[in-house]
Amino acid sequence: MTIKDIARECGVGISTVSRVLNNKPDVSEEVRKKVLAAVETNGYIPNNSARDLVKSRSDAIGVVVRGTGNLFFSDMLKVIAAEIDRRGYDMILRFLATDEDEVKAGAILEREKKLRGLLFLGGRFNYTPAEMSLIGVPYVCCSYTNSFGTLRESDFSSVSIDDFKTAYEAVSVLIAAGHSRIAAFFDACDDHSISELRYDGYCAALKKNGIPVDPALVVQTGGFEMEDGYRSMKSLIESGAGFTAAFVEADMMAIAAIKALHDCHKRVPEDCSVIAIDGLKLSEYTSPTLTTMIQPGEEIARESVRILMDMIEKGIEGVHLRPEAHLRNGGSVCSRQL
Amino acid sequence: MTIKDIARECGVGISTVSRVLNNKPDVSEEVRKKVLAAVETNGYIPNNSARDLVKSRSDAIGVVVRGTGNLFFSDMLKVIAAEIDRRGYDMILRFLATDEDEVKAGAILEREKKLRGLLFLGGRFNYTPAEMSLIGVPYVCCSYTNSFGTLRESDFSSVSIDDFKTAYEAVSVLIAAGHSRIAAFFDACDDHSISELRYDGYCAALKKNGIPVDPALVVQTGGFEMEDGYRSMKSLIESGAGFTAAFVEADMMAIAAIKALHDCHKRVPEDCSVIAIDGLKLSEYTSPTLTTMIQPGEEIARESVRILMDMIEKGIEGVHLRPEAHLRNGGSVCSRQL
Repeated sequence: MTIKDIARECGVGISTVSRVLNNKPDVSEEVRKKVLAAVETNGYIPNNSARDLVKSRSDAIGVVVRGTGNLFFSDMLKVIAAEIDRRGYDMILRFLATDEDEVKAGAILEREKKLRGLLFLGGRFNYTPAEMSLIGVPYVCCSYTNSFGTLRESDFSSVSIDDFKTAYEAVSVLIAAGHSRIAAFFDACDDHSISELRYDGYCAALKKNGIPVDPALVVQTGGFEMEDGYRSMKSLIESGAGFTAAFVEADMMAIAAIKALHDCHKRVPEDCSVIAIDGLKLSEYTSPTLTTMIQPGEEIARESVRILMDMIEKGIEGVHLRPEAHLRNGGSVCSRQL
Repeated sequence: MTIKDIARECGVGISTVSRVLNNKPDVSEEVRKKVLAAVETNGYIPNNSARDLVKSRSDAIGVVVRGTGNLFFSDMLKVIAAEIDRRGYDMILRFLATDEDEVKAGAILEREKKLRGLLFLGGRFNYTPAEMSLIGVPYVCCSYTNSFGTLRESDFSSVSIDDFKTAYEAVSVLIAAGHSRIAAFFDACDDHSISELRYDGYCAALKKNGIPVDPALVVQTGGFEMEDGYRSMKSLIESGAGFTAAFVEADMMAIAAIKALHDCHKRVPEDCSVIAIDGLKLSEYTSPTLTTMIQPGEEIARESVRILMDMIEKGIEGVHLRPEAHLRNGGSVCSRQL
């Protein structure tokens, strides 16, 4: 079954069938319906290979995902895939472990696949111009930015929440509920990356309220996995450090931290309030429901692709968006009873 | 920086550098180290575009994922991506909603991208030869098979657990613990798909033990999402139907069902035991830890790619693997106190 057969069956020209299939104007409604009915009946599938062959360059967009255990990224990836597809580009996907170098992976992908653009889903916050000269196509930092780096704003784009501010707000929720012994869990506190920004936000919220930062309550988990959250919370409880609340920098780790609290016979929120950042659908189903700062993941994903397309097709320079995170009041935070 | 520069710097020929970069034998350890050091120092990235250009056909493998909320698939996808990449192929990825037609999507992808093979991650269990004639390249059904269809075994490959047997075993665990009022939650019971097989396994285990199937305890959730599991469990509790245990066909729904039990002031497992199928890492962190049948997801993913490659490269006919699921004893099942 070819486009010729469809045209013959409908008594119209090939170009008319093509116009219908490509949703072009100047076809009567009657003919449009007839053609679509014939396509449907015959199970005809348009063959775009010929069009592909005459293209002068690839329409491939590289997507490099760092941190494969990150559920927040899994959800965003579906939106990114759909948006890239909808715009007629191919997505070439690479998953990296958290400790792999996304810039080098992106550069290799660019050369191997003749990419038109790159979208980094997660990455370091400290790129230098020398390092990024490896990348010869427009790129967008999705869910992070260059806070600790030296790139010029015009040389790249980024879409992410303000990590410092979001952590500041989360910790402020705990302080407003009367807590002052607030434990905090970060991958690391000095990684020039997302965790350092969130650690800084935690410290700033405490200081603003006259609460000293107690190093005994700050835990570096050494990773974002659930086991990191579980192990770290358990160790802190066993250390005997007193605390009535915990700020955990990611939902997945917070879910595991709540499990550790339960396993140590601590009630949430009565014995320990818990707040996190992410807003995964999953964390609505913990008992109690997790109180967390919701990142607008769909918006971040969709805007990242839109901006990348504008850079590729319209030559637009660096664009930087900072969508707001919003508090979801679950049941994992309660007022401190004095 | 080109391969020539690396060769000149090391005082060896271009072909030697190439052998090192492609991990070929017959290069002395000393030379190998020297070349790798030069590559590292100079930040040289091998350019494979020329090789790509002379290829007579594409090396693209289509991966069509149905059911985007399925975490089990998210984990497998990473293994599939890595395996396809490791073997020198490109992965072209499409995410579909649960109600979209994976065969048509695969056929369109095949023509547009000139695929060498297709891997369906999730799909219907009732394909016909006429329907599959749309697909002109080797394909593997990953995590499902053709139980309700009419394909010849030699015409396709499949890798999945035995859904009937796994459900039978899960329900048998509850029966062995003394339960006879066992509620069960399925997407649907007559969908000619995974849920029907698991429903049949549930019924068979009951019958084998002389327990009648009570339709009031069988809930069709109308989906695999967490909200489907939550809503369905809540409705069943409110219906007043008495039950002491529940078999839920997927971990994600079971996690939400446990939340519904908690919200209705039912203790797990004291008031209701819960068992599921999947074995997500996530379900280790519910309170209590979910008792579930662990699917060997990594093995299913890896073997699916291996078999697809054998079909493409060696012309091997249909291969069908049924790896075993294994019980993980969590804390969500207890003996029925009479």
